[in-house]
Amino acid sequence: MRKFKIGILGATGNVGAQLLNLLESWDENKINLDGPPRLFGTKKSAGREIDFKNHEIIVQDSLPENFEGLDIILSTATSDVSEKLVPEALKRGVKLVIDTDSFYRMNESVPLITAGVNDHDIDWHKGIIAGPNCTTAQLILPLHALNKAFGLKRVVVSTYQAISGAGKGPMDLMIQDCQEVLKNPEYIKRIRDTQVAFNVIPMISSLLEDGYSKEERKVCIESRKMLNYPDLQLTCTAVRVPVMTGHSESVNIELKKSFNLNEVNEVLKNQEYIQLWEDWSKYPMPLDVAYTEPVHVGRVRIDQSQPNTLDMWVVADNLWIGAALNALRIAEKAIERGKV
Amino acid sequence: MRKFKIGILGATGNVGAQLLNLLESWDENKINLDGPPRLFGTKKSAGREIDFKNHEIIVQDSLPENFEGLDIILSTATSDVSEKLVPEALKRGVKLVIDTDSFYRMNESVPLITAGVNDHDIDWHKGIIAGPNCTTAQLILPLHALNKAFGLKRVVVSTYQAISGAGKGPMDLMIQDCQEVLKNPEYIKRIRDTQVAFNVIPMISSLLEDGYSKEERKVCIESRKMLNYPDLQLTCTAVRVPVMTGHSESVNIELKKSFNLNEVNEVLKNQEYIQLWEDWSKYPMPLDVAYTEPVHVGRVRIDQSQPNTLDMWVVADNLWIGAALNALRIAEKAIERGKV
Repeated sequence: MRKFKIGILGATGNVGAQLLNLLESWDENKINLDGPPRLFGTKKSAGREIDFKNHEIIVQDSLPENFEGLDIILSTATSDVSEKLVPEALKRGVKLVIDTDSFYRMNESVPLITAGVNDHDIDWHKGIIAGPNCTTAQLILPLHALNKAFGLKRVVVSTYQAISGAGKGPMDLMIQDCQEVLKNPEYIKRIRDTQVAFNVIPMISSLLEDGYSKEERKVCIESRKMLNYPDLQLTCTAVRVPVMTGHSESVNIELKKSFNLNEVNEVLKNQEYIQLWEDWSKYPMPLDVAYTEPVHVGRVRIDQSQPNTLDMWVVADNLWIGAALNALRIAEKAIERGKV
Repeated sequence: MRKFKIGILGATGNVGAQLLNLLESWDENKINLDGPPRLFGTKKSAGREIDFKNHEIIVQDSLPENFEGLDIILSTATSDVSEKLVPEALKRGVKLVIDTDSFYRMNESVPLITAGVNDHDIDWHKGIIAGPNCTTAQLILPLHALNKAFGLKRVVVSTYQAISGAGKGPMDLMIQDCQEVLKNPEYIKRIRDTQVAFNVIPMISSLLEDGYSKEERKVCIESRKMLNYPDLQLTCTAVRVPVMTGHSESVNIELKKSFNLNEVNEVLKNQEYIQLWEDWSKYPMPLDVAYTEPVHVGRVRIDQSQPNTLDMWVVADNLWIGAALNALRIAEKAIERGKV
């Protein structure tokens, strides 16, 4: 059985840590490692030791020459790093770079993949496969299932996004801010412009010229690309909430064909990587879904405000399904399809 | 100038406290008090002293005979108390009971009022006026303004609701839970079934037979009643978030007539009690709007997913606009219209 030398770029970040956690217990029949993964970080973190299956791995500086000999790189670096280093990796013989960053997502020569949704697009990769934004990744699984079965007409999404999506710094800051304002719990107040603690912030990433945020735009354009549905009608309001891990989404979906609730539930249950919460008296919440693999779909109900329409509630671990887990599933599927 | 004897039922609760705060500084030319308000609470809280403009007022037991001689009662009691005591108050000559509770809201002989929206309905009251659910109260102001100008076609709402709407007990519990889980900030975990701290809960009030919650149903039926628009197409997902005070709402609105953004902004700016945040780089957040009077409407942008549609973000102090402030505005308008 073929073995693969794997590297992780951005290994010391939030998603990098989750990649390592997941890879440690990944089925060896699916991704057969040729030695422990090689880890790459910034110059500052180079030299750090990270444990992997009881081996101490030394983090290397992210220099192109260090990528020699690797088969697959899982990259969770920032856009500027992706832009510069991914082509260097390919030049040095790396067969596949799976990049969770946004830089290559909308590039027409790069497939954008959520595992379980458009795996067939893996087949035309030219060395790079991009993974979507975390918010899109969890949304697209139920959308794909419903699109196949009934045809999507229009989607309205409002998000409740965890702070871990913003990185380690903002996570620590939220904890600090909580501790600080709780010194006077009678009067919970603002102590910082960007305070998420005891607040909600309806602006994620930057503001665009039409009043939407970049995050909201990503959900629209990435969904259209993955579903190969360029004129899908979709709008989004993306909001940060004081939750550590686990994005939630309130989703209103108008379908082209009529349906009954049983049919919808069957379709969702049969979709790879979805866990349906069919009993309305229970519903997924971020505290419960952190560090779980499925996209949790609950509160699926018929919206009486117009025909052929549903409301649902979608929760997933944003670092897993939205980045690390999806990257590993793509690697597994690329291997299975003989595309590495 | 006519003076009014006012009583507050439920004076020691969350909303009762805000009623007293607001009444202390209310324009005396609008509501001219005949002596300090009389305060009513449960048997347990009877005898407590509460300060009002440097008078100590003793909380009385909520017994019908204690309502004698009052002109107006502002009631923030629970449904069972409203059901029993409001008719008793009317029997004893109280001219107007303004009830923030749900018990009378959908009663056909009781006007349901958000001040600034359907003030004319004050004119047909028969002794009772109900105020809407807090979530509906802040939503209905922009909906009313847009309905008048362009006609509402369909509305999709997702809410981000503060814990103060659930009462004092849940507020204290959320603070306690935050303090408890922050003892180990590396691992924020669930310590309670109903935990809001570092979580979001997509179920407010009870579950109904069609999968919607009672809170979501209220938003639909109360909006239709206040707008006198029985077949308004509206759907809602109501979610609790770890915020102390200030409900937020992500609202997608399809209008009947076409519009441009300037026209919409003008309509919203001209609506009584709305503050429009026209500059997209700024947006209302619950930490900033607690204890402010307006309904804050921001992020008003054109939803390109279908014609004649808007996305917007609506934030307000849920205890004020959603209960106490609206009750006092109704009292003021009822006096002005000669309906007390």
